[in-house]
Amino acid sequence: MSSYLKLQQKELELKYKEVLARYENLVKQGTALDMTRGKPGFDQMDVSDEIFALVSTASGFKNCEGTDCRNYGGLDGLIELKYLFSQIFGVDHSQIIVGGNSSLNMMFDTIAQAMTHGMGGEPWLLQGGVKFLCPSPGYDRHFSICEHFGIEMIPVPNTPEGPNMDIVEELIKDEKVKGMWCVPKYSNPEGITYSDKTVRRIAAMKPAAKDFRVMWDNAYAIHDLYENGDELLNIYNEALKYGNEDNIIMFTSTSKITFPGAGVAAEAASPFNVKLLKQRMSYQTIGPDKLNQLRHARMFPNFDKLKEHMRLHAKILRPKFEAVILVLESYLSGKGIAEWTNPKGGYFICLNVLPGTAKRVEKLCDKAGLKLTTVGATYPYGIDPNDTTIRIAPSYPQVEQVRAASEILACAVELAALEKLLNK
Amino acid sequence: MSSYLKLQQKELELKYKEVLARYENLVKQGTALDMTRGKPGFDQMDVSDEIFALVSTASGFKNCEGTDCRNYGGLDGLIELKYLFSQIFGVDHSQIIVGGNSSLNMMFDTIAQAMTHGMGGEPWLLQGGVKFLCPSPGYDRHFSICEHFGIEMIPVPNTPEGPNMDIVEELIKDEKVKGMWCVPKYSNPEGITYSDKTVRRIAAMKPAAKDFRVMWDNAYAIHDLYENGDELLNIYNEALKYGNEDNIIMFTSTSKITFPGAGVAAEAASPFNVKLLKQRMSYQTIGPDKLNQLRHARMFPNFDKLKEHMRLHAKILRPKFEAVILVLESYLSGKGIAEWTNPKGGYFICLNVLPGTAKRVEKLCDKAGLKLTTVGATYPYGIDPNDTTIRIAPSYPQVEQVRAASEILACAVELAALEKLLNK
Repeated sequence: MSSYLKLQQKELELKYKEVLARYENLVKQGTALDMTRGKPGFDQMDVSDEIFALVSTASGFKNCEGTDCRNYGGLDGLIELKYLFSQIFGVDHSQIIVGGNSSLNMMFDTIAQAMTHGMGGEPWLLQGGVKFLCPSPGYDRHFSICEHFGIEMIPVPNTPEGPNMDIVEELIKDEKVKGMWCVPKYSNPEGITYSDKTVRRIAAMKPAAKDFRVMWDNAYAIHDLYENGDELLNIYNEALKYGNEDNIIMFTSTSKITFPGAGVAAEAASPFNVKLLKQRMSYQTIGPDKLNQLRHARMFPNFDKLKEHMRLHAKILRPKFEAVILVLESYLSGKGIAEWTNPKGGYFICLNVLPGTAKRVEKLCDKAGLKLTTVGATYPYGIDPNDTTIRIAPSYPQVEQVRAASEILACAVELAALEKLLNK
Repeated sequence: MSSYLKLQQKELELKYKEVLARYENLVKQGTALDMTRGKPGFDQMDVSDEIFALVSTASGFKNCEGTDCRNYGGLDGLIELKYLFSQIFGVDHSQIIVGGNSSLNMMFDTIAQAMTHGMGGEPWLLQGGVKFLCPSPGYDRHFSICEHFGIEMIPVPNTPEGPNMDIVEELIKDEKVKGMWCVPKYSNPEGITYSDKTVRRIAAMKPAAKDFRVMWDNAYAIHDLYENGDELLNIYNEALKYGNEDNIIMFTSTSKITFPGAGVAAEAASPFNVKLLKQRMSYQTIGPDKLNQLRHARMFPNFDKLKEHMRLHAKILRPKFEAVILVLESYLSGKGIAEWTNPKGGYFICLNVLPGTAKRVEKLCDKAGLKLTTVGATYPYGIDPNDTTIRIAPSYPQVEQVRAASEILACAVELAALEKLLNK
């Protein structure tokens, strides 16, 4: 198939009529599909249901250290989970804080703490005019945190290896630039994994701001779709080589291992940062829900058990991802109007449509009963400068629905492109 | 028994020798008792253990609205719990936010939000020099939050009816005074309940600061030891009469209903405040642990079930409180060296010893193997100006231990008083 960009007006008109007919037919089917968020489906949650039997009167409520997990105490979480997360983060268990059900909350609180108490320096709020680097497209909820705290966001374009580090290294010369958001593995929304070179360059950064922090959101650390998943270099070990370990704060959670709403989140950092963070926490709470932590500790007594569990998720997710890719390939391949990623893990596929048509695609999908993540949401301030990025979240619907949704999406992409090319 | 304050030197010396001998005997017994915190005992936690069976594959994970509680979503909690908490708070369910496992965390976050985003006005941090009224003695963790955020604490003496409102009404003329901590029912540590008059005066306050907030921590709202517990006037309804409803933010939790570490916390406020708080929360989290909320909703399908459950706690706690009171009465009554409260609910008894001897009592108890809440902790900046207040927390040890602890305490109080009177 030759690219639409090379077709004559007449040929385009013919294509347009054909695609329009197909689209109208899809609209008529009256579908109602939702691919807005990276929510696991019920079948994925079912694979963790055995967890509920693991904490009861019969099994007792004490962890390996004899702590009654029903009562107060234990600011930074159960030791069992510190060890488990230490294998995900690749740092010592003493550098890990195990929290409640939301890593987003831990990130928010960390930024909130920086605003009111600083990160070893003056409170960011009192410094004023603080900025953050936002590799884009990225995770909308990271950007929202910046927006909430009035932190100016500077978009940084992504490459297939992660953020464009030439640009990053330039921008960090501004001492008002206090940090950077990263989803380094199976990134949201592109599904790419930072190359070793990118990780090393981030680890080696010497920002002008002494209180600069990389917010390293490793949300999809072990979320492979295939046996041979991407490998992410251990940034903490790299940062240590440059004496930059205080620059890095890492996050992860079991939201997409057990339950999105009732998992366990964790934060890892240098001893200096951990001390700083725990200080705040000692005022903020008496401790996390240790019973839910105990459930997780008993469910995953070791890292192998955890990895085995992730294979159950992969088995459910893989066909959904493959369904999207197959539909996109069969409808859009070679037409020069769209490109997409084909991630080996994570929760998203990123579709780049003909510049200037993403919002139109969203509208067309909506009319045909398919809700997509708001176009622009993956960019700071909700502005996709090229109006090109669409985040596909295939996890929640069932495979048949994913296929149907992808067909609507592919058709909308094609229709919007033809409209654009024909100036309709 | 005549007061020690009226005894002659010689009589005091005799008493001193007698009490010292008793104390030394107690030290020899080598006890190890802990009454530092208001932690429920294991027997109290046992009464809630049935909760674990209530959420499982067999029972399903959907609430009354059909929400799968395992997944993301539902920022402000399950509707069932909003209705349940609305009966505790006495406000409409739409004014309630149901959160995670810690009301302290909700209070911290509320103050943190005021610091960075204000409470309808400028951020408190940018206003600078913000102050808070701290009825004293009070809850140490309230005071710690102020300390963390650099909020200047102004102690306000308590009366048997609550904070001295003459003083409060004077202090709120200062527009830097932004709020006040209250534990209005079975207060920590005195166990007193604010009189209707006090509640009305708090509700009627017109502080100079337009962004003034009463932090109404109703932690012991339904925590009666006896059938006829104290009645607390509904402050929100009173505030409404004066158009002051935005001044009040209320908190409670099930930490001392189900589990200290794994209960459910809630916050209630005016529509204006709730909107403000939810706005922040929408950036902070995707939602609380709804599965733990579902457990609670199923455990307490209505308010009567909840009150019935509280009777189980009362049955366990009552003998512990009565043991303390009995020992204090038999050893200290009429000696003019100590006064104590006799609360009808809550978690604490407050013992006021001869001014200038509380720290000494703490030390003597420690030597005899009894750990008490740090003297001074119940006052802002940890300073009890009269060195007189001792918080007794009888919930955690078993009755026999409570009795033994009280005997050590009574003996230490007497010994410290005699030392003081004899200038030893």
